[in-house]
Amino acid sequence: MALLESYVAGAWRTPDDEGAPLLDAATGAEVARISTRPVAAADAVRHAREVGGPALRAMTFHERAMLVKELALALKEHLDELYELSYATGATARDTAVDVDGGIVTMLGMSSVARRTLPNDVVAVDGPVERVSRGGTFLAQHVWTPLRGVAVQVNAYNFPVWGALEKLAPALVAGVPSIVKPAEQTSYVTERTVRLALATGILPEGALQLLVGAPDGLLDALDAQDLLGFTGSAETAAVLRAHPAVVQRGVRFTAEADSLNAAVLGPDATPGTPEFDLFVTEVAREMTVKAGQKCTAVRRAFVPSSLLADVEGALAARLATATVGDPRDPATRVGALVDLEQRDAVRAATRRIAADASVVSGSLDDVAVAGLERGAFMAPVLLRAHDARSSAAHEVEPFGPVASLMAYDRTDEVVDLLALGRGSLVASVVSHDERFVRDVVLGAAAHHGRVLVLDRDDAAESTGHGSPLPHLVHGGPGRAGGGEELGGVRGVFHHMQRTAVQGSPDMLTAVTGQWVAGSRRRTDGPHPFRKSMAELAVGDAFVSDWHDVTAEDIDSFAVMTGDTFYAHTDPDAAAANPIFGGIVAHGYWVLSRAAGLFVDPAPGPVLANTGLENLRFTEPVRVGDRIRVALTCKALNPREHTDYGEVRWDAQVTNDRDELCATYTLLTMVTKQPR
Amino acid sequence: MALLESYVAGAWRTPDDEGAPLLDAATGAEVARISTRPVAAADAVRHAREVGGPALRAMTFHERAMLVKELALALKEHLDELYELSYATGATARDTAVDVDGGIVTMLGMSSVARRTLPNDVVAVDGPVERVSRGGTFLAQHVWTPLRGVAVQVNAYNFPVWGALEKLAPALVAGVPSIVKPAEQTSYVTERTVRLALATGILPEGALQLLVGAPDGLLDALDAQDLLGFTGSAETAAVLRAHPAVVQRGVRFTAEADSLNAAVLGPDATPGTPEFDLFVTEVAREMTVKAGQKCTAVRRAFVPSSLLADVEGALAARLATATVGDPRDPATRVGALVDLEQRDAVRAATRRIAADASVVSGSLDDVAVAGLERGAFMAPVLLRAHDARSSAAHEVEPFGPVASLMAYDRTDEVVDLLALGRGSLVASVVSHDERFVRDVVLGAAAHHGRVLVLDRDDAAESTGHGSPLPHLVHGGPGRAGGGEELGGVRGVFHHMQRTAVQGSPDMLTAVTGQWVAGSRRRTDGPHPFRKSMAELAVGDAFVSDWHDVTAEDIDSFAVMTGDTFYAHTDPDAAAANPIFGGIVAHGYWVLSRAAGLFVDPAPGPVLANTGLENLRFTEPVRVGDRIRVALTCKALNPREHTDYGEVRWDAQVTNDRDELCATYTLLTMVTKQPR
Repeated sequence: MALLESYVAGAWRTPDDEGAPLLDAATGAEVARISTRPVAAADAVRHAREVGGPALRAMTFHERAMLVKELALALKEHLDELYELSYATGATARDTAVDVDGGIVTMLGMSSVARRTLPNDVVAVDGPVERVSRGGTFLAQHVWTPLRGVAVQVNAYNFPVWGALEKLAPALVAGVPSIVKPAEQTSYVTERTVRLALATGILPEGALQLLVGAPDGLLDALDAQDLLGFTGSAETAAVLRAHPAVVQRGVRFTAEADSLNAAVLGPDATPGTPEFDLFVTEVAREMTVKAGQKCTAVRRAFVPSSLLADVEGALAARLATATVGDPRDPATRVGALVDLEQRDAVRAATRRIAADASVVSGSLDDVAVAGLERGAFMAPVLLRAHDARSSAAHEVEPFGPVASLMAYDRTDEVVDLLALGRGSLVASVVSHDERFVRDVVLGAAAHHGRVLVLDRDDAAESTGHGSPLPHLVHGGPGRAGGGEELGGVRGVFHHMQRTAVQGSPDMLTAVTGQWVAGSRRRTDGPHPFRKSMAELAVGDAFVSDWHDVTAEDIDSFAVMTGDTFYAHTDPDAAAANPIFGGIVAHGYWVLSRAAGLFVDPAPGPVLANTGLENLRFTEPVRVGDRIRVALTCKALNPREHTDYGEVRWDAQVTNDRDELCATYTLLTMVTKQPR
Repeated sequence: MALLESYVAGAWRTPDDEGAPLLDAATGAEVARISTRPVAAADAVRHAREVGGPALRAMTFHERAMLVKELALALKEHLDELYELSYATGATARDTAVDVDGGIVTMLGMSSVARRTLPNDVVAVDGPVERVSRGGTFLAQHVWTPLRGVAVQVNAYNFPVWGALEKLAPALVAGVPSIVKPAEQTSYVTERTVRLALATGILPEGALQLLVGAPDGLLDALDAQDLLGFTGSAETAAVLRAHPAVVQRGVRFTAEADSLNAAVLGPDATPGTPEFDLFVTEVAREMTVKAGQKCTAVRRAFVPSSLLADVEGALAARLATATVGDPRDPATRVGALVDLEQRDAVRAATRRIAADASVVSGSLDDVAVAGLERGAFMAPVLLRAHDARSSAAHEVEPFGPVASLMAYDRTDEVVDLLALGRGSLVASVVSHDERFVRDVVLGAAAHHGRVLVLDRDDAAESTGHGSPLPHLVHGGPGRAGGGEELGGVRGVFHHMQRTAVQGSPDMLTAVTGQWVAGSRRRTDGPHPFRKSMAELAVGDAFVSDWHDVTAEDIDSFAVMTGDTFYAHTDPDAAAANPIFGGIVAHGYWVLSRAAGLFVDPAPGPVLANTGLENLRFTEPVRVGDRIRVALTCKALNPREHTDYGEVRWDAQVTNDRDELCATYTLLTMVTKQPR
């Protein structure tokens, strides 16, 4: 059997011992061997800092996001191989889809959101320019820059592929190299995944390393520019959080821990309603997928007292159809737990809850699966707590196919019960009653990282209680670890430092690469619409001629557009308007006339006006005013692998009293090269 | 002398001992007495949770922000009283302005930014609606809700007013009650401030409590819904961070620790340039204000080797004019350190650095101030490190009027030297060279929470190296504590939980109070422009008639606005455009015509269109198309204390093939009551 290797500082390292066996969760056969000697981790940290970090930081956000996409597509070519290995962990094909396909989809999602929302540059801005001075010579802009260290992943055994990829993708986009430390039980799946990823040659050297086994001196090598991302038990999270690396040296620590996630059935969801059935299906699914070894799985199910018997019956009937057995058999709904030790732990935890609860469905006895006598099988167990408030189900987590039903009577009561989990990754509320949903969601949100509202309207497209999505934050307060991962660009920024930069407009433009209002413009060249992205520079500008505003302008515009709002058409009524005090031009006329003033009509690199941001009408425009517009190239975002990109323009319409009448950001699509 | 009291659970608590004396930093006279017995803190935590939190959470963001503003204005009436007390801490009037006026300005700034950017509601959204399903029946929205606990402040002695108010303001806006625990040395100033604040009766009971002295069981009473905000030494921060409350129970811990902040002089800033003088002035000011007892003060000054002698000379000359003495004397530039113990600590730290550095200016001997022989005075000490890379100035912080000059030769070298501080609150770069500034700022940003670029262009309006601003984040990585405070609404959100809510459009509308595209519209009432804010409801909508797009529409618009871009006017050229492939209507015409379709022209509650957000043209409009617009009330933000507020409308222009042509958010100003 293969002895698993680590990838450190550019080379695969073969351990010099024979290793200990890792066993197939269903058959008990040896799958791989894992070294029992420590792996020198400081080399990996040094290599990431000295080689991987600089290589990634030399790229833009878009370039790095393209690496993530290419890597995901390359891994997709190896699904069969990864599925085959995954069966050995006890996972069925359906379970593996969550892990393997889910990991690939997460990479694609992170890549896509990064290219859509981040600039094609090495620095990103956060929030607007802060105008902290009266005269405008001293401004501030928050910026994000990559941490100068390494992102260390310490992962759980249950998702050996997703767990690694969902942390890798945002780190790569941010420009921070990763070291992956998989959990031992399923490390052979992660090792294969990393091996496939490295073999593609897509990533720069040092961007991804792997430590299989017990890393030696890993935490001791980390400091405040490094991240430690942990997924696993709350107990281990507490140990890591107290390590001197975190406490004294400021390593950024994020934990995503198992939590006592809940599902709530609304009082409206009586038998016969779609929501009643949705609740039963969702809870049963959460108990059986991955044999319940999911940090997001439903552990506590809150049901109105009056509906408890119905829910019990329906859930028990549903669970009776969940076949436990060989994960390689397509008929199996519940595969094996990862190993016998885990099964013992789940049984022990279940017994603690059962001390004050009834077993509604399932049992703690062995499940007989023909030919697989050494497999870690367990039948789903549904409990009903004798007393919802005092149940051990708020404290104890059986990390397997186990959940507890609990009764409630009032909305404020179920909100309190939800909080007894002391912080969870996710809760579901299954109800079609908007008032109930609002009260429960806003009452319980402070204790949750995610809340799913499930009803007849969204069920067909719902991605389900248990599924973290790349666009949404994943994590939760308190017991759930207090961390946050993913969430689109939020997950990228977790790997970066936010810094408030103060300076003159020119200096902010120089630092951010985005033109800041008040800084230098270049108006001596050709019209900027005549320039492709290759020729354009931030600060290239056009200042239009003056236009004299006439009554005819306003009247014709009202007629042509049908916009006869009284402030543009009725002098007496307009005079009574507290803001205008008389006839004013339409805001849309100001915009349209400004375009007429700045546009360069002949075909050229500017293909289209695609949108507008942050338009504010700041001063009314009246008959007799003169207006002009200054258009300045604000930001260039060439897209990877297309012939054009987005150019953002700052537009400022002013009058002859030097008052700003309108300000906005214009979005255009422009060719990369001259046409 | 007054024995300082604590304010707990609605009452001032007088300690039952005589207390220990707190001495005037300059005269040595007794100022107040502080109890030596522990204060029972669990009562305060319980009261905040049970009384203060619910009262604050019943209010909207705007209502809470108004409390902050009113409180700031009320405290402003007591400047004389607070200044008088502040002299006893050794602070001059100039120093006190930073603390007292600075604290009030911070409250006003936080109040203003909160009312400008947060909704007048109990929940705020974070980022856009995430369209995570193809059919649009299942969406997600991140929301912020207040933590259900208490924000405990553990403050430093140097800013007894600002330190309390800058943490109080964002907590109040967020809806989280505060417990203030001032540092003993200057607790009499904080006690008076809290006493004045409570006496106004502006805050709801339980929103603000005070613990003077050693709190008993404070940390033990906290859990994952509570925050612990610490300002002080890195050593104490490490102790708190390792406490079981943080490590095991998930209390949100933020530290803002003293750091080895730097100023960098650019190679361009030779003697005779404005930047050379600005650098000398800034470093001297940072050494002398508050006698250097500022966590943001410049401790390390990096200067090009070739300019070192010039800078030494100029700084020494400047410091020679900094009179040390009685803080009550307007001629004094450097007041007293907080006490003799602190002075001894500063001297000891300075000696550690001086072991490998020369004393350029000042001395460690006693300063003779006539009549104030018991005062904790110290002359500013400027050191020059013998070797910039190995200097103890990167490790040791004399928390007083002490800084070290260090020489560098290359840009990458000064970036490395900055990083040796292992994370700082702030660095200044004094240079007029844009390339140098960009390289240093982007190179060093990952190690800093704030970077100030100072040059001839912004100096007149610069707020200075040492000043945190309410709109900008305050904090820094690593040694600086790893925390973040202020930063406008960012500081408010630090007191809240971010939760991803998934559901149908209707459910997201119900939870967020903002209309989500795809959810129910009410079109059966009067035109929504006929409704005041009191009458409008989110979801009120108007769907216009169809308009048939004609060639005349496009031609006239081109003529009238002067926008003759070829895609609207030249059929052959338009056909060659890769996006349009033929004549299309102007985007601005679509906007303008849509306004003509939805506007209700007669005078009414809608006063003005003030702006537009997130406009995207998604499908071209061509001759022969029919278009119409649906306008739906999206959000209502009545402003406090005015007669009108902002109403946001969702606008969607569609064609007769049911394609979305344009989508945007329209901003209007609407009266609160019927007109």
